[in-house]
Amino acid sequence: METPGFLEPFQGRWTKRHLLDLESLTSDEITLLLDVAQAFKDSTESCRRKLPVLTGRTSVNLFFEDSTRTRTSFSLAARRLGADVVEFSASSSSLSKGETLLDTAKTIESMCIDTLVCRHKAPGTPQMLAANLDCAVINAGDGPHEHPTQGLLDILTIRQHRGDLAGKTVAMVGDIAHSRTARSNIWGLQKLGAHVIVCGPSTLVSRRWEEFGVEVSHDLDSILPRCDVLNLLRIQFERQYTRPFPSVREYALLYAMDRKRMERAKSDILIMAPGPINRGVEITPEVADGEHSVILHQVNNGLAVRMAAMWLLNDGRATS
Amino acid sequence: METPGFLEPFQGRWTKRHLLDLESLTSDEITLLLDVAQAFKDSTESCRRKLPVLTGRTSVNLFFEDSTRTRTSFSLAARRLGADVVEFSASSSSLSKGETLLDTAKTIESMCIDTLVCRHKAPGTPQMLAANLDCAVINAGDGPHEHPTQGLLDILTIRQHRGDLAGKTVAMVGDIAHSRTARSNIWGLQKLGAHVIVCGPSTLVSRRWEEFGVEVSHDLDSILPRCDVLNLLRIQFERQYTRPFPSVREYALLYAMDRKRMERAKSDILIMAPGPINRGVEITPEVADGEHSVILHQVNNGLAVRMAAMWLLNDGRATS
Amino acid sequence: METPGFLEPFQGRWTKRHLLDLESLTSDEITLLLDVAQAFKDSTESCRRKLPVLTGRTSVNLFFEDSTRTRTSFSLAARRLGADVVEFSASSSSLSKGETLLDTAKTIESMCIDTLVCRHKAPGTPQMLAANLDCAVINAGDGPHEHPTQGLLDILTIRQHRGDLAGKTVAMVGDIAHSRTARSNIWGLQKLGAHVIVCGPSTLVSRRWEEFGVEVSHDLDSILPRCDVLNLLRIQFERQYTRPFPSVREYALLYAMDRKRMERAKSDILIMAPGPINRGVEITPEVADGEHSVILHQVNNGLAVRMAAMWLLNDGRATS
Repeated sequence: METPGFLEPFQGRWTKRHLLDLESLTSDEITLLLDVAQAFKDSTESCRRKLPVLTGRTSVNLFFEDSTRTRTSFSLAARRLGADVVEFSASSSSLSKGETLLDTAKTIESMCIDTLVCRHKAPGTPQMLAANLDCAVINAGDGPHEHPTQGLLDILTIRQHRGDLAGKTVAMVGDIAHSRTARSNIWGLQKLGAHVIVCGPSTLVSRRWEEFGVEVSHDLDSILPRCDVLNLLRIQFERQYTRPFPSVREYALLYAMDRKRMERAKSDILIMAPGPINRGVEITPEVADGEHSVILHQVNNGLAVRMAAMWLLNDGRATS
Repeated sequence: METPGFLEPFQGRWTKRHLLDLESLTSDEITLLLDVAQAFKDSTESCRRKLPVLTGRTSVNLFFEDSTRTRTSFSLAARRLGADVVEFSASSSSLSKGETLLDTAKTIESMCIDTLVCRHKAPGTPQMLAANLDCAVINAGDGPHEHPTQGLLDILTIRQHRGDLAGKTVAMVGDIAHSRTARSNIWGLQKLGAHVIVCGPSTLVSRRWEEFGVEVSHDLDSILPRCDVLNLLRIQFERQYTRPFPSVREYALLYAMDRKRMERAKSDILIMAPGPINRGVEITPEVADGEHSVILHQVNNGLAVRMAAMWLLNDGRATS
Repeated sequence: METPGFLEPFQGRWTKRHLLDLESLTSDEITLLLDVAQAFKDSTESCRRKLPVLTGRTSVNLFFEDSTRTRTSFSLAARRLGADVVEFSASSSSLSKGETLLDTAKTIESMCIDTLVCRHKAPGTPQMLAANLDCAVINAGDGPHEHPTQGLLDILTIRQHRGDLAGKTVAMVGDIAHSRTARSNIWGLQKLGAHVIVCGPSTLVSRRWEEFGVEVSHDLDSILPRCDVLNLLRIQFERQYTRPFPSVREYALLYAMDRKRMERAKSDILIMAPGPINRGVEITPEVADGEHSVILHQVNNGLAVRMAAMWLLNDGRATS
């Protein structure tokens, strides 16, 4: 398929081979990703319509951690672009036979794939693969390090609802210490001029985050009136927290967004959550399903962002 | 792809958004589903040829119980119509992280899917999803409640071999108590005028079935000469039967279709089974593979029925 | 899609319905498979470009043993030809409900599939299925018996790098006793005129292999100078070896290809491995990644061979 007219202004402007993090991107590169994602969304009825610009290309999902939404989102993004998708199941793989991760990846690459989407619990895994492979690598989450497409979809959602990010105050609330989503948001939001607050119990939100230029708070109620956006991270109860940690009940009391807190927030506050959400823990059902919540918009924007990334890393990329 | 001529007479006649059961359908609606399925079968060399009338549509298989034949059948039906299919694996999903089923489903829906095919052990799950989602929901089995496409494929198979259902006697034999297949058949067959007998040991076939208008029997040999069709349900030995139950040997003695029973049956009796079959328990190999058996026809008709349902719920549906 | 010109010379020359082993093929049949694979490779940028000659066909992967590379390779081969692929998961299948393997396969076949790709731990499984099904069956590994597409891709790789097989000396090194790859290579290589040596510890390489016409050696160092090709089989440590077996360290000392052994080998020796490799056991990293290694070429040739097999068994086959 010929490149559709709406994509032509973006062609050749992206120069990187991989999408590994937001930390190393410039604000122009982040804005390009957002603009292409928005263009895809506008031209395909919010990513419902198929736009086969990557027909004949193959994307492989190489996921070493459980995932529903991210894996499915990448699969659907690739298919909407006409690409083939192959799912790699870590549990039934040659890795259980002693093969190194890099040998597994090189083997897959030798089958002429174009994009490798990788999730792994070890920070730096996608970077290691990118340094050794010719195909495009997209980081779909490397341990607590980064999850760049999640950061992009969060930022795109804010931009759609509140316009320019510059000067906006965005608070990430919850388990910042273990959150790749928090890290990618922090880098992306700050590069675009937003003021970022990380907020949560001191066991999960260290003062050392100030080194990254963000404001640190342990008191949601005190920062709430200043926030344009709240991004409520999930408390990962399946994780074995080794440090002292508030009980679920205590956490909900101090940090859950509920009707009472909504009354003290800005009248146009945006409520976001990367999901999956624990209803009644970090968010009450009435807020999750309320008019300020854009949680399902985030999911839809995930498609747009991943379509944009796949297109830019393949046919939309500068060839030099 | 433009709607092919053979589908035009059916376009716009279906009015429901979902396919959740046969109980709530009229005989006209059931007949429409059967007619469209037959038309697909006739026009695609028994569903072998691809007919891309749903290109660009996406179907998601959301299965919370093990399944080979049903899941594969839905996948292939969607692909034969040109749709994309995404498999959702319950075990590696966000549900294990505490997400509610409805949040999972709404997340998937936000990725712009068109059809959600759901199997769950809890009766009413697809109905709950249908009440809360905009996409089309197809019930692929909800506990012991219903399995409407299985009922339709069974009825289609009878209609192909014996014509009009009215006045035909169809016996469902086996574990009626736990069988969603039995329920869907009972509703569908009766609406089309067939006489239905449920037959099996009293622990698995209660007298209370008479309330649904069917004949109840515990003696296969006594009803056998009257039956036009026998549908032999599988004894689910993986289930922990908590009530007194005949041994396998006793069950086979009393209820297995074997050569001797075939001699006392009508000369044109149809032998059906939803499968998987236990050879030597509810059916002997010579009957399963014999000339009266239409078990593999049922499998093929499963494709036709699912193609029909997917088309009617999407492009073939009345828009008002 | 019309048959492309480059495939026309091959059309109608293949006469078998299935691809079950190399033992029963003639040298002409093996050469035809290799020639078609090479033609696909040459005409699709090493299998990168899609060539939809099997659009509308469906291939099913019926794998009862773990596999990454083979399963993914067959999936990608089918998709590059435009066919649909359905993955069958043995663990979540009806087999766990007591269904026979043949009933499972017949059920899948009744959904109008064209090619069944089967891997099973029991030797003879694909042959049993082929004898009872109408669809094309490809053996993707049946226990220690055969793995014909692996044999073909190994031979194709040698032919690409060294030309005619006649008179070449190829050594298979390692666990010959349990290796279907070894068996398929032995049959294929000998039919094309190569001299085959099987080499390894006496517990894994019996003198009885001489009955198959191959040379048996327990001393890699003594045969090394004569070898044009070394194919280093993986030591399967996940297998519970019940016979006396050298330790890993002892095996590496006696049989690993390392720099020292490379110095004593022919200057143009080809180093092959079916993978996954155990770095430091049968091969050192510097040899695996060195200039003589064609391991990743083998992977790419796997695509070509499987595309060739699928095309020949379907549209390229003689119809009589």
